[in-house]
Amino acid sequence: MFSIDPYQRNLMGNGSSEWPAIEIGDPMGGPTVAVVVESRRPDFAPGDHIQTWSGWQDYAVSDGSDIRKLDEAVAPLSTALGPLGLTGFTAWYGMTRVHDFKPGGTLLVTGAAGAVGSTAAQIGKLRGLRVVGVAGGPAKTAYLKDELGLDAAIDYKADDVEEQIRRALPDGIDAFYENVGGPLFPVLMEYFNPHAKMVVCGTIADYSDTELPRGVNYLPRLITLIHYRFVDIMAFATPYVMHAFPDFLAEMTPLVASGKISYREEFVDGFEKLPETLLTLFDGSHSGRKLIVRAD
Amino acid sequence: MFSIDPYQRNLMGNGSSEWPAIEIGDPMGGPTVAVVVESRRPDFAPGDHIQTWSGWQDYAVSDGSDIRKLDEAVAPLSTALGPLGLTGFTAWYGMTRVHDFKPGGTLLVTGAAGAVGSTAAQIGKLRGLRVVGVAGGPAKTAYLKDELGLDAAIDYKADDVEEQIRRALPDGIDAFYENVGGPLFPVLMEYFNPHAKMVVCGTIADYSDTELPRGVNYLPRLITLIHYRFVDIMAFATPYVMHAFPDFLAEMTPLVASGKISYREEFVDGFEKLPETLLTLFDGSHSGRKLIVRAD
Repeated sequence: MFSIDPYQRNLMGNGSSEWPAIEIGDPMGGPTVAVVVESRRPDFAPGDHIQTWSGWQDYAVSDGSDIRKLDEAVAPLSTALGPLGLTGFTAWYGMTRVHDFKPGGTLLVTGAAGAVGSTAAQIGKLRGLRVVGVAGGPAKTAYLKDELGLDAAIDYKADDVEEQIRRALPDGIDAFYENVGGPLFPVLMEYFNPHAKMVVCGTIADYSDTELPRGVNYLPRLITLIHYRFVDIMAFATPYVMHAFPDFLAEMTPLVASGKISYREEFVDGFEKLPETLLTLFDGSHSGRKLIVRAD
Repeated sequence: MFSIDPYQRNLMGNGSSEWPAIEIGDPMGGPTVAVVVESRRPDFAPGDHIQTWSGWQDYAVSDGSDIRKLDEAVAPLSTALGPLGLTGFTAWYGMTRVHDFKPGGTLLVTGAAGAVGSTAAQIGKLRGLRVVGVAGGPAKTAYLKDELGLDAAIDYKADDVEEQIRRALPDGIDAFYENVGGPLFPVLMEYFNPHAKMVVCGTIADYSDTELPRGVNYLPRLITLIHYRFVDIMAFATPYVMHAFPDFLAEMTPLVASGKISYREEFVDGFEKLPETLLTLFDGSHSGRKLIVRAD
């Protein structure tokens, strides 16, 4: 099983990824769930299920230091690519280790119906925040409210999006988990409360842009807001913080196993479907479910 | 003696100041050096020099809780409005308490010839940073290099400013003390190194703008830089951190008294000169010296 993730777009050559870039001819990188075929280590036996970082290839060799054994009795194997994998880790780290968001305030999550955003939003609920999610279209906003139990949802594709934002944020934004970027951010940033904290964890709307947009330049306004509302904006780079992965697994495994953190997956069958499946992440058409491609 | 400071522009009605706004008919706020005329407290005697927050008025009443006695034998009285007053405190707090800038990296200071910026730059030098200052015109950049001993200076008014920036920042920016805002920031932000830290302490170039500029919208680029270079941007609000003022005085008084932190003052005589003197801060014409108006 291959994990399909937005950051893979950036592995390809624009040099802006925090992960090592891949060259033409190299396999695409990323986590997989695999089966041990042959082993010279006593702690891995043929038939064992493991999580690897071997990317888009049929077979790979590991010295055992970069793989971990999975136990289907604890949680479905696919969760090792979703809420108990890099996806969940990205949400957990930003919500708990970059900023330690405190209960009581309003958390805004963009890309909230997606794999990372939905986990971040649920961590926010478990931590006692009022959580508002942004997603595109009525099916996704219904999912945010009805299935994830968020306090409000904003449909960024709706004509009345600014009115929806106003209604959803009567007390402003104390915490912001930014997952998307794009044209909505200048509207949302006006809702920052004093001492608001923001984690930038992705700007998927901007990944494929080769040119900056023209029109109003909102940069001075953001700096002014940071200055007068003492906003703290931070980011983190997953490759540099993997040392926290065991803590993440210890905290999140029971939450996922018990259903307190829910998740949605979508399986695509066929190794050859990998490229086209990745592309669906960037046109806004995909369901928001965690995409996993299964080889035969 | 009345302190003339950029933030006073924002006390007047646009509601964006961290200090309480002043209403029409109220005196302008701000620190002063004054003389005790009459006292009912044993710890203040007529003739004592004090630093007050009474703003632009001839006489004021205090219960003693918001004034401090000054000793001319320790440092000139005017320093209570400059490097040992709110100006110095703003520089010191941003450099030492918001971000604890580490030795070895490159610090960029905008508005570096001004009262706050020059103090921040010198604190940077004392902490072992390579310090690059931005200021307008050859007189100010000469001051940065020759008198403050900065490692490089950038003249933002020069035609070859982008070339100057390239030469001054061969190893990028690790620490950024942002004091100005304005059109140079989108150029400077491209020099952020991974894990760069930025304190936003003023955006004087943007204080009087009522409309956002048009053209290229650099906001998505800043968010992308924050994301991929894990930049940490923070701000602070002086009124909320005044509890650190005694620590600041303890650390900075010997540095100012011994000349390790230097400063430049410009005195204007006449209470009636207060408004026009404040306005000179915003047209780029003033010398960068700390402006102090003396009443008769």
